[in-house]
Amino acid sequence: MDIVEQDMKAAGLPTGFQWGAGKAGIKASGNLDVAVAIAPKMATAAAMFTRNQVVAAPVTVGRRHLAATDGRVGAVLVNAGNANCATGQPGIDACLSTCSAAAETFGCIFDEVFPSSTGIIGVPLPAEKVIAALPKLKDSIGSADEHAELFAQAIMTTDTKKKVARAVVDVDGAEVRIFGAAKGAGMIYPRLGPPHATMLVYIFTDLSATSEELRAALAPAVERSFNCISIDGDTSTNDTVLLLASGASGVKMSDRVREPFENALKLVCASLAHQIVDDGEGVGHVVTLHITGARTEADAKQVATSIAHSPLCKTAWSSADPNWGRLLAAAGYSGVSFNPANVRITIGAQPVFELGVRSEAFNEAAAHAAMSEREYTITIDLGTGHAECRFVTCDLTQEYVKINADYST
Amino acid sequence: MDIVEQDMKAAGLPTGFQWGAGKAGIKASGNLDVAVAIAPKMATAAAMFTRNQVVAAPVTVGRRHLAATDGRVGAVLVNAGNANCATGQPGIDACLSTCSAAAETFGCIFDEVFPSSTGIIGVPLPAEKVIAALPKLKDSIGSADEHAELFAQAIMTTDTKKKVARAVVDVDGAEVRIFGAAKGAGMIYPRLGPPHATMLVYIFTDLSATSEELRAALAPAVERSFNCISIDGDTSTNDTVLLLASGASGVKMSDRVREPFENALKLVCASLAHQIVDDGEGVGHVVTLHITGARTEADAKQVATSIAHSPLCKTAWSSADPNWGRLLAAAGYSGVSFNPANVRITIGAQPVFELGVRSEAFNEAAAHAAMSEREYTITIDLGTGHAECRFVTCDLTQEYVKINADYST
Repeated sequence: MDIVEQDMKAAGLPTGFQWGAGKAGIKASGNLDVAVAIAPKMATAAAMFTRNQVVAAPVTVGRRHLAATDGRVGAVLVNAGNANCATGQPGIDACLSTCSAAAETFGCIFDEVFPSSTGIIGVPLPAEKVIAALPKLKDSIGSADEHAELFAQAIMTTDTKKKVARAVVDVDGAEVRIFGAAKGAGMIYPRLGPPHATMLVYIFTDLSATSEELRAALAPAVERSFNCISIDGDTSTNDTVLLLASGASGVKMSDRVREPFENALKLVCASLAHQIVDDGEGVGHVVTLHITGARTEADAKQVATSIAHSPLCKTAWSSADPNWGRLLAAAGYSGVSFNPANVRITIGAQPVFELGVRSEAFNEAAAHAAMSEREYTITIDLGTGHAECRFVTCDLTQEYVKINADYST
Repeated sequence: MDIVEQDMKAAGLPTGFQWGAGKAGIKASGNLDVAVAIAPKMATAAAMFTRNQVVAAPVTVGRRHLAATDGRVGAVLVNAGNANCATGQPGIDACLSTCSAAAETFGCIFDEVFPSSTGIIGVPLPAEKVIAALPKLKDSIGSADEHAELFAQAIMTTDTKKKVARAVVDVDGAEVRIFGAAKGAGMIYPRLGPPHATMLVYIFTDLSATSEELRAALAPAVERSFNCISIDGDTSTNDTVLLLASGASGVKMSDRVREPFENALKLVCASLAHQIVDDGEGVGHVVTLHITGARTEADAKQVATSIAHSPLCKTAWSSADPNWGRLLAAAGYSGVSFNPANVRITIGAQPVFELGVRSEAFNEAAAHAAMSEREYTITIDLGTGHAECRFVTCDLTQEYVKINADYST
């Protein structure tokens, strides 16, 4: 069994699904803003949602539908441009009315419609616009690459690029395929939990698996991918990751299939998570924080998030400034205990701090050059244990401020 | 007994102290970068330091000196432009050598010198430059307004204004005076602890009090002032608040004096804390987060810091954008539990959110106008209890990013 991660188009799409996209007039730009994915009868699903306690109406409804159907999804209906969050009972009602109309349009049961919304918070969702767009949305659906691409495009908000990833697992000659599509460029610090993620991620596979089997595969893949990235530290009210299995490959989940499938799923999640940061609002540099020598993985992650959310670290990255004192200060206030004298910091291959002082080999010009790359890794060894994590984040730029100062006005 | 908080110069300076400032050549600009305050024999002190576990050499030495002298300080020696942090044992040695030279210059005992440093982290402190500047520094000292002002000026780094505050307590005809000077424009989210604050704050009073009495007065004043502000969420390695009492007023701390003195101290601390945020790097708006209806004051503060550190909230403030959904989202991921349906949000006097939805009376233009003021208050009632806090913070601007992207290169 081989896992093959390939470029869009090089690997085939999972069979059994259809995708479509349309314009409901929610985005002021007039761009594509509604998307649908249709799954065959008996498709199974597992989802993880945001841990923010303020959740959007589609998150409330999506949870309820998955519980009611015991993990069955017939259609995924997504709108971009309006988060349908902090909209009260009218927001729930608006969401339900779109689900109801979509069920009729696409011929599935009402609570087999899985809704998602992304965009501004606190503005009533114009359900009537979504509903009016459904007939044309139905006309748009198909199972070709172009359809999957339009789906990925329609769910974008401030994203500048589509985010897609594919993988194929060969099981004794039969192919199990995975296709994932994601959006998210701001308000990105997903902390997805089992009972509960405005990052939106949809992963389609033609494996045959129960909802429980999908959940068991999804949680660890999410933990080291979407739960290990941050653009701005703002955990959204709408984050959702949905894994949907059509069963159309004829390959059933089994002890033999589990490991290669889970590894392929991790590759797809890691690729999408990386693409989200790479297309983050105003991002100039993608920085991987590799925290090593920690007591526990949770400690390593706590140090990483402290640095990933430090405006002083992030602004220094924007100018490729090897101001490593800011890294050490942010680690110092992370709440994880360590002895600074045992800490080692390297930027790319450049040693910058060890034995309590600036490395003797510190070369400011070389460190600046390493940080001038679009992507690089900062390694911080805490000297307290053997656990580690890799956390992917980005710089904070004037462009980020501009984008988010201009959002709603 | 009256507490009078007055403008610089309108109230007299506390008697018994002398201040001075000079140029050691640490700042590349050639501006004033060393400052000294001289206290009379038997002056008492209490200090609070940063809770960051990575601490600068002067913090380590300052703690040690206060412990060794049981709270006696004869001279405060401050340099700006270099934090003397992450400099290892050579940094400690550099600090000690400046203390030793200052003791000789100013005629006090070695460990009665209280050192402070602020500036870039990780660059060796040029102790020889500080020591060479001491003779001229000694020539500069005096007890007039101009001397106190020069002290406040020399401790600045990216600050654009001096930060000073005064108060006078009338005790049965005798005056007890308080003068405070502060610096700090970035890396500002002080979390000062009893055993331990690159905000630097020096408060001088001519009250006669023991070190223990000063500590008891300082802690609550710090908790609701410096510990309730944040510019960027980065807790410095050097934050220090020092309260120094000369005893020269002849008024001794007593049950009768305690409350008015503590209230006056709180006023001075609150004024300096506000000035620090007001002069924060790139700040366009000073925003007070008044969190009410919380279960505990700690809960209220946790919600406030979550909002104060949200880049999305802060960028919206920079353009006076009443995007209140971001406030609600940041409160939602703060870790403090509440029911969104019971939350009320007002910006200035403008209702924006209540009963789970946008307020019926929400007026975007009026909210935008309220947020166009240099200062305003956002009130968030959590609807869970009766505790509250006021937390002072600011917007995140392109100018902040520019300042901090340019710092060391």
